Order: sequence, then C-alpha cells, then structure tokens
Amino acid sequence: MRNAQEKDLLLTNLRLPDGGPPGRRILIREGRIAEILPAAAPDPAAPTMDLCGELVLPGLVDGHMHLDKTLFGLPWIPHAAEPFRMSRIENDQNMLPSLPLNTASRAGELLRRCVANGTAHVRSHVDITPAFGLSALEGVLEAKQAHAHAVTMQIVAFPQAGVVRAGGQKMLDLLDAAIRAGADLVGGIDPCEVDRDPKGQLDGIFDIAGRHGVGVDIHLHEPGEMGLFSLQEICLRAKALGMQERVTVSHGFCLGGVKESKQAAAAAMMAEAGVALATHGAGGSTLPPLMLLRRAGVRVFCGNDDIRDTWSPYGNADMLERAAVIGWREDIRHDDLLAELFAMASSGGAEVLGVADHGIAPGNPAHFFTIAAENVADAIGRHPLRGKVFHAGRLVASRGEWVA
Amino acid sequence: MRNAQEKDLLLTNLRLPDGGPPGRRILIREGRIAEILPAAAPDPAAPTMDLCGELVLPGLVDGHMHLDKTLFGLPWIPHAAEPFRMSRIENDQNMLPSLPLNTASRAGELLRRCVANGTAHVRSHVDITPAFGLSALEGVLEAKQAHAHAVTMQIVAFPQAGVVRAGGQKMLDLLDAAIRAGADLVGGIDPCEVDRDPKGQLDGIFDIAGRHGVGVDIHLHEPGEMGLFSLQEICLRAKALGMQERVTVSHGFCLGGVKESKQAAAAAMMAEAGVALATHGAGGSTLPPLMLLRRAGVRVFCGNDDIRDTWSPYGNADMLERAAVIGWREDIRHDDLLAELFAMASSGGAEVLGVADHGIAPGNPAHFFTIAAENVADAIGRHPLRGKVFHAGRLVASRGEWVA
Repeated sequence: MRNAQEKDLLLTNLRLPDGGPPGRRILIREGRIAEILPAAAPDPAAPTMDLCGELVLPGLVDGHMHLDKTLFGLPWIPHAAEPFRMSRIENDQNMLPSLPLNTASRAGELLRRCVANGTAHVRSHVDITPAFGLSALEGVLEAKQAHAHAVTMQIVAFPQAGVVRAGGQKMLDLLDAAIRAGADLVGGIDPCEVDRDPKGQLDGIFDIAGRHGVGVDIHLHEPGEMGLFSLQEICLRAKALGMQERVTVSHGFCLGGVKESKQAAAAAMMAEAGVALATHGAGGSTLPPLMLLRRAGVRVFCGNDDIRDTWSPYGNADMLERAAVIGWREDIRHDDLLAELFAMASSGGAEVLGVADHGIAPGNPAHFFTIAAENVADAIGRHPLRGKVFHAGRLVASRGEWVA
Repeated sequence: MRNAQEKDLLLTNLRLPDGGPPGRRILIREGRIAEILPAAAPDPAAPTMDLCGELVLPGLVDGHMHLDKTLFGLPWIPHAAEPFRMSRIENDQNMLPSLPLNTASRAGELLRRCVANGTAHVRSHVDITPAFGLSALEGVLEAKQAHAHAVTMQIVAFPQAGVVRAGGQKMLDLLDAAIRAGADLVGGIDPCEVDRDPKGQLDGIFDIAGRHGVGVDIHLHEPGEMGLFSLQEICLRAKALGMQERVTVSHGFCLGGVKESKQAAAAAMMAEAGVALATHGAGGSTLPPLMLLRRAGVRVFCGNDDIRDTWSPYGNADMLERAAVIGWREDIRHDDLLAELFAMASSGGAEVLGVADHGIAPGNPAHFFTIAAENVADAIGRHPLRGKVFHAGRLVASRGEWVA
C-alpha cells in the first residue's frame, strides 16, 4: 500500500479521452490524481514517467466473472461437461476440488491478467455449494488480499448448485456464513429452472441480504416467459424490501427472447425497481436489448463471465475486447454510442459496484491505464495491448504483463 | 519472389499442432516445406531460425472481407451512416471516393494487419458500382500485387449498390468488365431486398459466371422466409448450371431465423447444390446453425467481414479472435469442436478458395505462423499475439508487426 511518505509522480507525454489540448500532465500524490496540469503550467518537482503519447483511460470494470472456476495457471484442460447447464454445474463439483492448483493460485493468475488488461475493479461470483462449503470463497479472499494493491473486488456468494435443491435451509445457512466470512453480496441462480421453487429461493436469499444489509446478484439464464416471470419476482422483492439500487440480474437472456412490447415493459419494471443488468454479450443465448434498457433507465454494465475455466475455453480477461463483442452484437457503430459502451465497461460498472470517485479527475484515486489508441472508440474497436496500468498511482502492469 | 537460388532455412525449437514428439524441425526450401525432420535426424546444412518453442499453425484464411472499405491508414473517422443497410450502401458511394488516402493504400494497410495476424489467404469483396466503376477494383488489384509475396487473394466483383436497381444491363456489363480486369468471382447482394428482382439479379450474375467460368459469392443478409427464398433460388441455379463447389452464400442470416426443420431442409439443399457458407458470426443478426450445416455436408468457412471501415468501427484483422467469437456464439466448447472451428478459419476456407496444398506437411508451400499457445484450442481461446509469420518460406511479420 502507498502511504503519504511515498514520492509524488508526474506523468508526462499523454493524451486524455476528452480530446482536449496536448501538453497536459497528471500529478499523482498519495495514490490519487492530485492535479491535471495544463500545458502552460511549469513542471512540479517530482519524478516523471513518460507515457509515450498514449491515451489514458479510466480503470475498466469486470462486473461479472468467476475467479474460482478459472483454469489459468494449469496446462490446458479440455472442456469436460455435457452441452447443458446442469451438466456444467455437476462437473464443477467433481472437477474443481481435484485440480492440482488451489483456488487462490488460479484466481491470482486470472486477476493478474485482468489487471494487465486495465481492469481496476471486479465483481466475482464464488461458488458456495454443499460440496465446497466456504473453501472456494476462502481461496478467492486470499487472492483478493494478495492483489489489493492492484484491483478492488466485490465477491458474490453464489449458490451455483442451487438453493432449494441443494439443501434448502442448510444451503441458506451456508450463504449466510459466506457473508459473515467476507462475501459482499448474496447470489442466486435460475429460481425456476434450477431450484424449481422460485419463492423458496428468492425469499431465502433476499432474507439474508436484508439481515446483513448487502446487495443481491442473481444469475438468470432462464429463457422467454419463464425468465420474465423470475425477473418479475426479483423486481417485486427489490421494491418491496426497499433494495432499489442494490439488486443486479446477471445475463437476463429472457429479455432478448420476448417481443418488443414485453421488453419495454420489463425495462420499465427493472428501472422502477432499481434492478441493474450485468451482461457478457449472451454467447449462444438471446441478447437483452441493452440500449433499450439503458434508455428506460436501467443500469447496464458488462463482465467477461467465464474466462478459460470449467465452463468455457474462451477468454483473455480483456474488457475492451468484451466491449467490442457486445457492441458488435448490439449494432453500436456511432461514436456517441461507443462512448456509452465504454461507460458500460467502466464508470457504469463502477457505479453499480459502489466504487467511489471513478474517472480521471483531480481528487480521484489514480486507477487508469494507457493504450496506443486515438480515442475511446478506437480503443474498443481494435482493443490493442495496454501500455501501462496504474492502481492507486502505482504501476501494476506494463505492455500486457503484470509488474510484480 | 523467392527463387531456387535462395538459401534453405531450418526452423528449430518449435511445436507442431499434432502434439507429437518434441525436437522436430522444419526445413524450408524454395518456399516450400521440404521436410519435417524427426528429433533423431541430424541438422542439415542450412541457416537456422529459433522459433522460441512456439506452436506452428498453418496460415489462416479470411474468407470474407472488404479491403476497399477500410479506414485503416487514416485518422479516426466516426461512423457516418444511419442504422440501416441502405444508408450504409449510399454512404459508401459518397464517402469512399473522397477519402484522403486511396484504395490501394488503405487496402495495403489492412492487408499488412491481416498478415501480421497470421492470415495467408483472403477473399475480398470489392465494390463495383455505377459511381465507382472499376476504380476500387484497380486499387485492390494494386494492393494485391504489392503484397503477393505475403498473402494470396481472391477478389469478388461485388455489386454493393445492387444490380437491377443500379442499372441492370449496364451494371452487369460493369461486373463483366471487372472479371476481365482481374476479379476472380462475381458477387451479388440481397436479390429481393436490395434489387427487388431476384430473377433479374441472379440470372444476370450466374450468366456472367458461366461465360467466364468463375465462381459466385452472394451477400445474403435477407432475414427469415425472404432469405430462404433467395437461398433456394441460388441453390437451384448452382445445381442447374453445374456450378457445384463454386458458389458461396455469405452471411445467410436467414438460416438462423427459421425453425429447426427448415434449417435442416435448407442445409440439405445447400449440401446437394454444393453451395458453401461464409460467416463472420452474424453480429446483431441471427447466426446460421454452423455445426448443423457442417454435419449436413455444407462447407462452412469464416471471415472478418468489415474491419475498421465505413460499415463498422470494430476489427483488428485477427482470424483467431474472429474464430473465438464465432465459437462462443455457436456454443463450441470441446477440443474436437474447437479443432473443427480452427479448420473453418484455415483449411476449410482454403478449400473453398481453391488454395492447393494447405497445411503443415512436406511439399506444401511454407505458409504458417507461430504463436505462444499450448494447442489449437488455446490459440483460439486466448488468441495471443502471433510470433513469426512465414509466407512461401519468407518471414513476413514478427510479433504482430509487418516485416517490410
């Protein structure tokens, strides 16, 4: 951790995303942006670092990931599950505990790749299941602490194997224990399709959230009308319990699989209930109408979801590449919409994650990265290698590699 | 161009995708793979190059792109068209001729990025329209010649502005002239939606193809039943004219928007007519059922389509990243399917493009690249920077940069 005794740092030869005048410099002091100096201002007395004329962008936010499932750090392991979700859930319970690298080490491998790609903040779901107990959580908490100087983290206690079908009250007790052990939010999963008892699951997890005053983030893969039903049940509870702004639905594939009038009604319902949507771009599923949701007032943010893990062979932890894929699927082509897309992968996620003072402005924590791109649209479109990554003013990665 | 006098080259410290024994080396002679030497064989007398233990993979194939539309080489130009296809078509006619960099230069910029990403063969559509005449073709032909030592190219004479609606017989005469000027195939576009005269367009372009003995590649964006109707008309002509194996439908979004029984019927029809499908993963449109098509015997191959151009702000010319996006949308997770996916972006495309002797085997042209990946699945999943790229045995790119 930095402290007040650490030297100031003056960053020179950089460009800012506002496209404003050249010659500005960033002065870092005590981990924060002390000042953005105009070209005419003299250099303060401080060590300098040349940013090679690259664009400086605020830290990216990976708002939906699974640190505990990654296979990074291990030789290639072929995908082993059958092609349906319940098989992947069951496969995890057998496979993850028997891997020759523990959760903390694998999560650390992935976190360092996130950081090297300019990610400053993550929300990771962590499996809490009867088979795992709190062991995956303990591993991710260890990785979180070891990388706290480089990335901030929210952890969702995620009942991957279900709640009602995985023990009911015993499972709820486990989720409660996870919150007490350091998880920041309570999770849920497909209350109809996985648990076949939507009331049982949702009452249970919202009760935990209420007792601990934490947020909720629910994986909702359910398609079509079934998914909309579950979404309604989630929104009703968010509103009734006064949890507006503290509930997220992840995926929400159902929103992409119903007709436009139902999409619009669901968007209005989510906006009124203050329920946010996390998207990874939907893969083989139906993509929610992201811009329609935003226009209705729903906070939409992005995450990579599975990154080289037991669920997916794909991924490199790059949120700019993820934004490009999402924008390409959502038909986002104009610069103003690309700026919105960038916000969905940065400030928009920061807002939902409760990260204060996100962005490149005096007084804010010095979480940002450099990239050889002309502007935000170009940075997303090509997503070239990141130059330098700073967290709390400290250089934590360079040219795509973690700085030890 | 290389000639017989050029020195042999021995590539050492490499891995081959068959996962076979280490210690093998590749001997290049006269631009071809002369020999793959087993570990026990002595080194032949030749200059050597150390490939740093990287995996050697055969040259990638970008089977659908638009070299003439790219904006690479220019400062960022915001997307200017309205959000529907006809606006993009009209925008091109105004915008492309007024750019401050000519077609050959822009196409060259993009081609070098393709090569730097390991692409050895491309099929580029080039706009032939009343406004452009053959000027875009001339520019792309110039770029093709200038880069012939690094990449092979097929050119489709593409009536982007339509055929019937863009002059009818005059437009057909222009397409005919394009073939005589050096284009390799005749193109088409949405015979219902753009031309509103499917018989007029298809009879016209198949007539040109027949007279010149060239193939056909038709952009088919049309959705649902309209697209299926056009697809039927294309397949009927391919069969009736004995053009099996020489006709491609690009995109074929309609195949993703109809029920499974119709998909299966269309796949059987395409297989029987020998009509191939080129896909870029469908963006905001409905993705054809790629594996169902393959299982039915349809040749499916991949292309990047728009890369930083007047139609799209996205793209970096990386066919491994493109394969990852397509595989992610198609729910491809297992190693055997990832190997098929790699073929769709390499040997499968080579077959449709008529590239002889594709692949890393003695006697074949030495078109391949190296990558710091464990195997093909890993190379797609993470798509890291390419190491070295060879074309006809010559080093043409290194660490993602074109070698002059």
